[in-house]
Amino acid sequence: MTPEQSYEELVRRMKEITVLGNTAGVLGWDQEVNMPSANAPYRADQLSLLAGMCHQKFTDPVVGDLISDAESSKNLAGDPLGDSAVNLREWRHSYDRSRKLPQKLVEEMARVSSNAQVEWVEARKENKFARFQPWLEKIVALVQEQAKCYGYKDHPYDALLEDYEPGLTTAELNKLFPPLKKSLAEMVAKITSSKRQPDSSILKRACPIPAQQAFCKTMAEAIGFDFTKGRLDIAAHPFTTGLGPSDTRITTRYEETNFENSFFSTLHEAGHGIYDQNLPGDDHYGTPRASAVSLGIHESQSRLWENLVGRSLPFWEYFYPQLKKSFPGVFDDVSLEAFYFAVNHSAPSFIRTESDEVTYNLHICLRFDIETALISGNLKTGDIPGLWNDSMKKYFGIVPATDSVGCLQDVHWSHGSFGYFPTYTLGNLYSAQFFEKADKDLGGLGSGFKKGNFAPLKKWLNEKIHTHGQRYRAGDLCKVVTGRELTSDYFLNYLRTKFGQLYGF
Amino acid sequence: MTPEQSYEELVRRMKEITVLGNTAGVLGWDQEVNMPSANAPYRADQLSLLAGMCHQKFTDPVVGDLISDAESSKNLAGDPLGDSAVNLREWRHSYDRSRKLPQKLVEEMARVSSNAQVEWVEARKENKFARFQPWLEKIVALVQEQAKCYGYKDHPYDALLEDYEPGLTTAELNKLFPPLKKSLAEMVAKITSSKRQPDSSILKRACPIPAQQAFCKTMAEAIGFDFTKGRLDIAAHPFTTGLGPSDTRITTRYEETNFENSFFSTLHEAGHGIYDQNLPGDDHYGTPRASAVSLGIHESQSRLWENLVGRSLPFWEYFYPQLKKSFPGVFDDVSLEAFYFAVNHSAPSFIRTESDEVTYNLHICLRFDIETALISGNLKTGDIPGLWNDSMKKYFGIVPATDSVGCLQDVHWSHGSFGYFPTYTLGNLYSAQFFEKADKDLGGLGSGFKKGNFAPLKKWLNEKIHTHGQRYRAGDLCKVVTGRELTSDYFLNYLRTKFGQLYGF
Repeated sequence: MTPEQSYEELVRRMKEITVLGNTAGVLGWDQEVNMPSANAPYRADQLSLLAGMCHQKFTDPVVGDLISDAESSKNLAGDPLGDSAVNLREWRHSYDRSRKLPQKLVEEMARVSSNAQVEWVEARKENKFARFQPWLEKIVALVQEQAKCYGYKDHPYDALLEDYEPGLTTAELNKLFPPLKKSLAEMVAKITSSKRQPDSSILKRACPIPAQQAFCKTMAEAIGFDFTKGRLDIAAHPFTTGLGPSDTRITTRYEETNFENSFFSTLHEAGHGIYDQNLPGDDHYGTPRASAVSLGIHESQSRLWENLVGRSLPFWEYFYPQLKKSFPGVFDDVSLEAFYFAVNHSAPSFIRTESDEVTYNLHICLRFDIETALISGNLKTGDIPGLWNDSMKKYFGIVPATDSVGCLQDVHWSHGSFGYFPTYTLGNLYSAQFFEKADKDLGGLGSGFKKGNFAPLKKWLNEKIHTHGQRYRAGDLCKVVTGRELTSDYFLNYLRTKFGQLYGF
Repeated sequence: MTPEQSYEELVRRMKEITVLGNTAGVLGWDQEVNMPSANAPYRADQLSLLAGMCHQKFTDPVVGDLISDAESSKNLAGDPLGDSAVNLREWRHSYDRSRKLPQKLVEEMARVSSNAQVEWVEARKENKFARFQPWLEKIVALVQEQAKCYGYKDHPYDALLEDYEPGLTTAELNKLFPPLKKSLAEMVAKITSSKRQPDSSILKRACPIPAQQAFCKTMAEAIGFDFTKGRLDIAAHPFTTGLGPSDTRITTRYEETNFENSFFSTLHEAGHGIYDQNLPGDDHYGTPRASAVSLGIHESQSRLWENLVGRSLPFWEYFYPQLKKSFPGVFDDVSLEAFYFAVNHSAPSFIRTESDEVTYNLHICLRFDIETALISGNLKTGDIPGLWNDSMKKYFGIVPATDSVGCLQDVHWSHGSFGYFPTYTLGNLYSAQFFEKADKDLGGLGSGFKKGNFAPLKKWLNEKIHTHGQRYRAGDLCKVVTGRELTSDYFLNYLRTKFGQLYGF
């Protein structure tokens, strides 16, 4: 076989693995959206079998030989930014990494996490951490085992971060987070003590769910989510999943007296969805060239549309009149400015996904502290509720009344996803840095938003970020797109400007 | 390996294949209920890959060796009605049969039929047979190729029937159908010429779809469909699919001015669903001992609940007051008797799934004639619309105005399911024979139905039919349960009694 033939064979195999992976994706989506919960153990078997098959196919030594063979060709691997070189670089990275996990561990994780997720849903419903704890115990043990198999220099958590933000280390986060925390804490203090406060009670006004659903769909469509190649459904914990080149599914949840939740979750997931829908399709589909860079970059897309766009004044200059029509009578006495202030209310709160832009990253710091302690063995799962509540007190001055709105609120741990949370904060930092560049390149975005014109921004993101797939690693992409390394300057400036105007500091 | 160990290994492998098959089932359900149609080609690749994997695993020569090995044990194969002997008998049958299909043909059929189904949906929508015809052409060629690979004595159609009603031959159907046709034609003549006719215009009264959905769910639950282990959704062509031991999904379709369609489709699919939900679970799941006997027997369960129960007077004595409450004002001027007569109206019509109990089997005869002619090569796909319309004229005296309500109405051909239609008629015959026996055993069922008590009949079906899985082949099961071979006597008697009373003959 020539290196070129080896490469072709690799592409064929990798696309087949993607097809199988997307099959598991359909099963996963179905489990959260449709499946009768009584079927959970059987679905766990199905997902376990598929995960095992994917792992087996990907870690087949023949794959390693094919990669080595293709790497030997200058034609294929010579130009580091060429399609084949990008694919080979990422396959090499994943292959070396995945060979380190025994198949049994992969299957066990799929089985346990599928069951754990069902238990988490029930535990949260019943406010019964004890129901989830034995499953979390198993998950943490499996994750520690994973870290050991992967290997690491400084901290076992480094080995896990690699899955979500390749190259990022615990040490870097331990450098990045404390000063961010400090600035945010200062802002929280200014906001809390400000005399200007929004009337956020309007956010609890009853908005019928069918009209919320229609309005969410309208907004998602307006910013560029393509419903001919996607869906919007209901799930306990909103998520986005790509099930094929023309099948991207987003989810949200609805409460009659909490439209804010469904609206901004939808914009958030639509941001993820727009990224997935605009990755290179056709021939590239199923290869790194057509895959998202990292969770941090993915999150930058969702946060950009949710916050930088969706919580901006120009956005609501366009949508507020429509909103009033969609919910007749509900907002008659509320001015645009009052509405804008309300959706940007900032205050210490319990639920991460419902928290505001200022406090959000403090929620992440809390989780980061718990995760690193769990993984290094310095914290027992049984001690999580206590530490959680202590940290809430320390960061926010408030303590959740129940674990359901405390340490049981997030789905991630039931999935075995440790190392995922920090990428949310990275996403926030990236989103502000990208947005500022787009705003400069396009000569000011607000005037378009006012008229419902979101297409230029979407096009800019398509061209600057989406089209590259994994051509660049996250840090490099940031430099290529914005001309600077990732910094928290843009994010903090953005917050200071917006919240300074609103709260008068 | 001992024969016992071989058997254990066989069970393990077969259960794994079932898990994979159910994975394809989830994808298939999703395709018809949720998937954006733009994703069809990709989903076709997924289904093709899974079908290929299942075929490969099932036709692995090791499986043949394991079967032979296990068959050699008197302990396992000695008692022909023992669990292991039943499983071995059916695995042997399927293994010998599936080894005859080349993997390439299996994959090609999965790919083509997945695409064909999407094209069929569009062709029906657009009333454009020409859009579907090239796909049907491909399907027929593949099905003919299948028949050739399977082999047959008299008619290539025999080889296809074997998939749905093992052992049934074209010659037997050619004996069974003509006299049935004759009796039905006589009944149709009596009904058409009768002076007593129902006011079936009440069936077109507007019933809001959300209330239809709620009522359908109520009925399905009342007759015994377990919603903790199943769902009811919407699909263009109603179907039932078993996706796991605790996950049985039924579908229906709704039109505001056609509640009859959604109601009886739901009862029909719930009948299928109740069979699936009550097959032996646990250890047996994934083996023939826990599988349905044949499509004819499956259809007997759906038709029994749809017609023998759901179109009976006692059923509506119980449900009609509830119906009036669910659709306030709609049926105020309609007596129970008038409603009962309306849902048993009989008249020549275009759509098989909406046709009545008397004319239904004539629709099947029409399809049987076309299918056998297509498979034997005596009919070109391009000539189907003409032959369809000529046959409609001959059997019913009416001609469909469009192919959408003619030869494009059924999904089956787009799935490559040739030989399926005759099982509908077998189901009707079985349903009447089973129902008469249950009615005798349980001392009259009507008095219970009047009070909403459907549990005794469900229990009888559970014990007499469902619990056996594939212990008996269809014909033997009929003899064991009713003491007689399948005959059309019970069905024709049932029709003559009911329709004779209604139409006065």
